[in-house]
Amino acid sequence: MPLLPPGRPDRVDDVPTATLERLPVYLQVLTGLAEQSIRTVSSTDLAERSGVTAAKLRKDLSFLGSFGTRGVGYDVVYLHGCIADWLGVMRPLDVIVVGIGNLGQAVASYNGLAGRGFRIVGLIDIDLSRVGESVACGDISVRIRPLADLGEAARQAQIGVIATPGSAAQSVCDRLVAAGIRSILTFAPGVLRVPQGVEVRRIDVGVELQILAFRERRHSPTSPWQPGAVSA
Amino acid sequence: MPLLPPGRPDRVDDVPTATLERLPVYLQVLTGLAEQSIRTVSSTDLAERSGVTAAKLRKDLSFLGSFGTRGVGYDVVYLHGCIADWLGVMRPLDVIVVGIGNLGQAVASYNGLAGRGFRIVGLIDIDLSRVGESVACGDISVRIRPLADLGEAARQAQIGVIATPGSAAQSVCDRLVAAGIRSILTFAPGVLRVPQGVEVRRIDVGVELQILAFRERRHSPTSPWQPGAVSA
Repeated sequence: MPLLPPGRPDRVDDVPTATLERLPVYLQVLTGLAEQSIRTVSSTDLAERSGVTAAKLRKDLSFLGSFGTRGVGYDVVYLHGCIADWLGVMRPLDVIVVGIGNLGQAVASYNGLAGRGFRIVGLIDIDLSRVGESVACGDISVRIRPLADLGEAARQAQIGVIATPGSAAQSVCDRLVAAGIRSILTFAPGVLRVPQGVEVRRIDVGVELQILAFRERRHSPTSPWQPGAVSA
Repeated sequence: MPLLPPGRPDRVDDVPTATLERLPVYLQVLTGLAEQSIRTVSSTDLAERSGVTAAKLRKDLSFLGSFGTRGVGYDVVYLHGCIADWLGVMRPLDVIVVGIGNLGQAVASYNGLAGRGFRIVGLIDIDLSRVGESVACGDISVRIRPLADLGEAARQAQIGVIATPGSAAQSVCDRLVAAGIRSILTFAPGVLRVPQGVEVRRIDVGVELQILAFRERRHSPTSPWQPGAVSA
């Protein structure tokens, strides 16, 4: 008897972004369970390990189809395979990273990128003294290429990562888009202007810290966070 | 005549997380405008530069109070001051970073951290050969300290950043929490277990790439993203 209702959205577009953001987390937890040779997992357990409620987990998985048997739980390997398939982990996408400073290097050498369906195919830096340097990208090693090669390298990739200083981000973005890249991950602060059809996701360490800081200060005994204090 | 309704939530807790995530973006855009000596900005213009709709911007700002004058727009410096005050940028919080690899170093040397209200007060690494090394953190330089100093360093901070390999993240987290840290930013994949009252934000490059990848593949002509293909 299925734990989940058999209904699924007819179109992938119907999957909410929040669900999409949680699927990789479930995948990761399931990978860990499979590595420990754990065969089945209850929705409560899987949810707890993923940091969500069981109701939310079941709802998220319902977008993918029907899984699990009441009283038995989910088959770890099967559910892992379904989510991996669905997220496309089995069919690697090629990634170009522009800006090989600390952040770019961290992305390029990010452990487990290959296991998540990505392959670094290009590393670009403006600093000519870095050009030719080898960076270990999982099992392979990739050489840093000069900015002049950006277009050529980008044409071989599907995803572009911008890890340059903020001042260079828009021009790098423009060149990635001109080379046909439609999916961009940027670490640069500020908003990138892109044509319709190009998807940008932004990781901004400063913003994340500010959200934490806001909540931290709110709990502080000397908190000045009375909204009235700032009203016009 | 105020552009925004005068009503404000009575409790800061009422501010939605999504709004909280956008306030730093507005702050950043306003900083840029102020630097260009631009004195007023329309909600349409500010919204566009921030990558949101004008309606969303007005709604977000309504949580802070009433701003702007119809037909004139927002006073850049005043609005900047209000958001900065509200986010607490004026009262710096102290940050400890654990794990000074590429990611940790990127956070420590993140440009503009000071301008956003943060001060790096501790850098911790398990690698004794790194201990004593100086890392430029904005205007100041901070020496890397050994893992044994984690507790002591954490007691002087309000925010802990975990940039260690995933395998070390939970134990570092436990030690940060034991030292009194209630706000944690982690780059390690996987969910951290923390007691109630401790806030964790997670930046996972792999998850961000997987979300992009999912959408990228969806648009691909050979897309296998028919949910039926994975149903149980």
